[in-house]
Amino acid sequence: MSKYAKRLKNLGTESVFQVARQANEWLRDGNRVFPFHIGDFNIPTPLRVVEAMNKAIIEGKTGYCQPPGISELRIALAEDVGKLRNLDYNLENVIIQPGGKPTIGKFILAVMEPRDEVLYPTPGFPIYESLIEFHQGKAIPYSYIESEDGFIIDIDRLKSSITPKTSMLIINNNHNPTASESSTNELEEIAKICIENDLWVLSDEAYFETRYEGVSRSIASIPGMAQRTVILYTFSKKFATTGWRVGASIGPEKVMEIISQLNVNDESCTNHFTQWAMLEALKGGEEMCKPIIDKLRQRRDLTCNLLNNINGVSVTVPDSTFYVYPNLTDIVSRKRFNTVKDLQEDVLKKTGVGFCPREYFCRPLPSEKQQYGRFAYAGISKEEIKEGLYKLKDYCEN
Amino acid sequence: MSKYAKRLKNLGTESVFQVARQANEWLRDGNRVFPFHIGDFNIPTPLRVVEAMNKAIIEGKTGYCQPPGISELRIALAEDVGKLRNLDYNLENVIIQPGGKPTIGKFILAVMEPRDEVLYPTPGFPIYESLIEFHQGKAIPYSYIESEDGFIIDIDRLKSSITPKTSMLIINNNHNPTASESSTNELEEIAKICIENDLWVLSDEAYFETRYEGVSRSIASIPGMAQRTVILYTFSKKFATTGWRVGASIGPEKVMEIISQLNVNDESCTNHFTQWAMLEALKGGEEMCKPIIDKLRQRRDLTCNLLNNINGVSVTVPDSTFYVYPNLTDIVSRKRFNTVKDLQEDVLKKTGVGFCPREYFCRPLPSEKQQYGRFAYAGISKEEIKEGLYKLKDYCEN
Repeated sequence: MSKYAKRLKNLGTESVFQVARQANEWLRDGNRVFPFHIGDFNIPTPLRVVEAMNKAIIEGKTGYCQPPGISELRIALAEDVGKLRNLDYNLENVIIQPGGKPTIGKFILAVMEPRDEVLYPTPGFPIYESLIEFHQGKAIPYSYIESEDGFIIDIDRLKSSITPKTSMLIINNNHNPTASESSTNELEEIAKICIENDLWVLSDEAYFETRYEGVSRSIASIPGMAQRTVILYTFSKKFATTGWRVGASIGPEKVMEIISQLNVNDESCTNHFTQWAMLEALKGGEEMCKPIIDKLRQRRDLTCNLLNNINGVSVTVPDSTFYVYPNLTDIVSRKRFNTVKDLQEDVLKKTGVGFCPREYFCRPLPSEKQQYGRFAYAGISKEEIKEGLYKLKDYCEN
Repeated sequence: MSKYAKRLKNLGTESVFQVARQANEWLRDGNRVFPFHIGDFNIPTPLRVVEAMNKAIIEGKTGYCQPPGISELRIALAEDVGKLRNLDYNLENVIIQPGGKPTIGKFILAVMEPRDEVLYPTPGFPIYESLIEFHQGKAIPYSYIESEDGFIIDIDRLKSSITPKTSMLIINNNHNPTASESSTNELEEIAKICIENDLWVLSDEAYFETRYEGVSRSIASIPGMAQRTVILYTFSKKFATTGWRVGASIGPEKVMEIISQLNVNDESCTNHFTQWAMLEALKGGEEMCKPIIDKLRQRRDLTCNLLNNINGVSVTVPDSTFYVYPNLTDIVSRKRFNTVKDLQEDVLKKTGVGFCPREYFCRPLPSEKQQYGRFAYAGISKEEIKEGLYKLKDYCEN
């Protein structure tokens, strides 16, 4: 057999899984690896969450549940997410998913026509670009400008990219990979553009509650936005439950009905008993998250200090996410590489430090002259951070 | 916002979830319900499986795993599935999924072009028809003829439906809803058609190991078929783990690479620690399944006896699945209904017996003159079977 569907030529991937494989091979060969590459935790899930799951199993929650998820979790999540965003959600606005990611493809299938244009961030989570194009849309990038306070969205470019074919905008405040977030003003400007052009909005809020200072803002909170915005929600980053695969789509009732019907077709429902565990996690609230956030804050501070300590590298200290996105232009040129991807491969082999080059986060624009890499610190201990970044310093400065 | 994608008009659903909702409302109003409608278990998952899951959690398997699943489970499944089908599978032939269902949509997206014709069974699992059409294919039904030994596939009709646009055939031996299975001869005839016309084959083998007598056969075992067949595998029916949502796509390496890339895009990976639990389930093997099969066999016998005891109803006793599919034509006409769907709604209200009318299993053909319903017995106790079917007898005969 050799006939495969033509649509596959538009399907992208998440190259971080490739670095993970590279790093694992490197490890298996007896080398040390300092895993700054993968956005995953080495922090255990709180015991109370595991206990609630076992209680649910004992109570017989091992059969199917309704495709949109158990009502108890949908109600609790509507309340929790609504409260933090000053919005009034209820059960009908929440559809449980096997992770945060499924919301991307399902929302796109629900509202995007073939040849529609969809605005998405580059650098950005690579699955946006992949799924827009796989489902026959046109992926139109908007970009970031590095400023003294971090990264800001190039609003002029974004505005000038709007055409009559634009039907959707994807925003990822608390941004992967730059760790940046929009000012209130920037968010309002974007909202205005979306309302004026009657766009649907996918707001990827995976890192909304992974923050160390200040308050997160959702574009859905701006008047006129909730009725056009679907929030990608995940329990993964908040409760150190990435491998549990539980998240939700949150938005207007009519879109949620469609997404629920897609659940029926794609996977029937999300694992039943882990939903009861997540209900317990929500009840645990801030008290349950605090030890995780405290640990991440220490790692962030250490990572930023040590990166800034390297001659030719500088980062601003982000208030949220578990990423930093240093400018590596000097190092790339000093080491006589053409791209940060080449640097990344050399760094892995010479020092064991794994990180993700900018190229892994959607196609770079021709106008981009600076070179960046993403360092994640959720899956690496303080000791490893120290040792890895000293090795990196040594590599960069010699 | 009012713009939704046009493709949604082709999206179907699984109406059994609607009967479940109806039945739950009926229950909540203080009525009794005898749940023959839903293909789910009231049998707990074996404790050893739950224990293996907890062990995995303690060992830190709460982060992501690789998108195709953990190697240990892929290897064990390749061996187990291969042995039962006399085929040589290995790790590369197995991609873990969050349930059996995801294989349908992913395989269709991997090989079917828009406007391709796909042969599928009617009556049959409704998601085939839905996803073929949602992804822009043309769903071409093949059908069954009731014989003295149960249902046989109308091979002449199937043959005459092949055109140059036919690219795929879906087969569900150990069939939902009729509980029928193909003779060796019938399976070979179908395989011959697939080879002659160079078709891809989706073999839904969800009930392959839910059997009471004899041996299950896979179309993939026939020479020339493994390289064109993707098996839909699920742990759900074998180990009473429907709500766990773990299954697999099993087939040719190149298709598996595509399906793995779709995993990256759709959900990253299947829940990590439940995969370790399923590895333990596979190790438990027949010893672990036997109590489940024994219980189901008793229920099957009771259900068939009591249905055959109703004047005007007859069923053959199936060797596999946990369904029976009685001919209800006499009852429908005696009660002066036009369709079995009308009968089903009346039966629920008058007796509390929930079952699924034939209409829920893909669009009926104009040529169908007989009326059927599906009774599932995996989620109902022997006492409830007795009481429910006595009530049904009373309803039918008076």
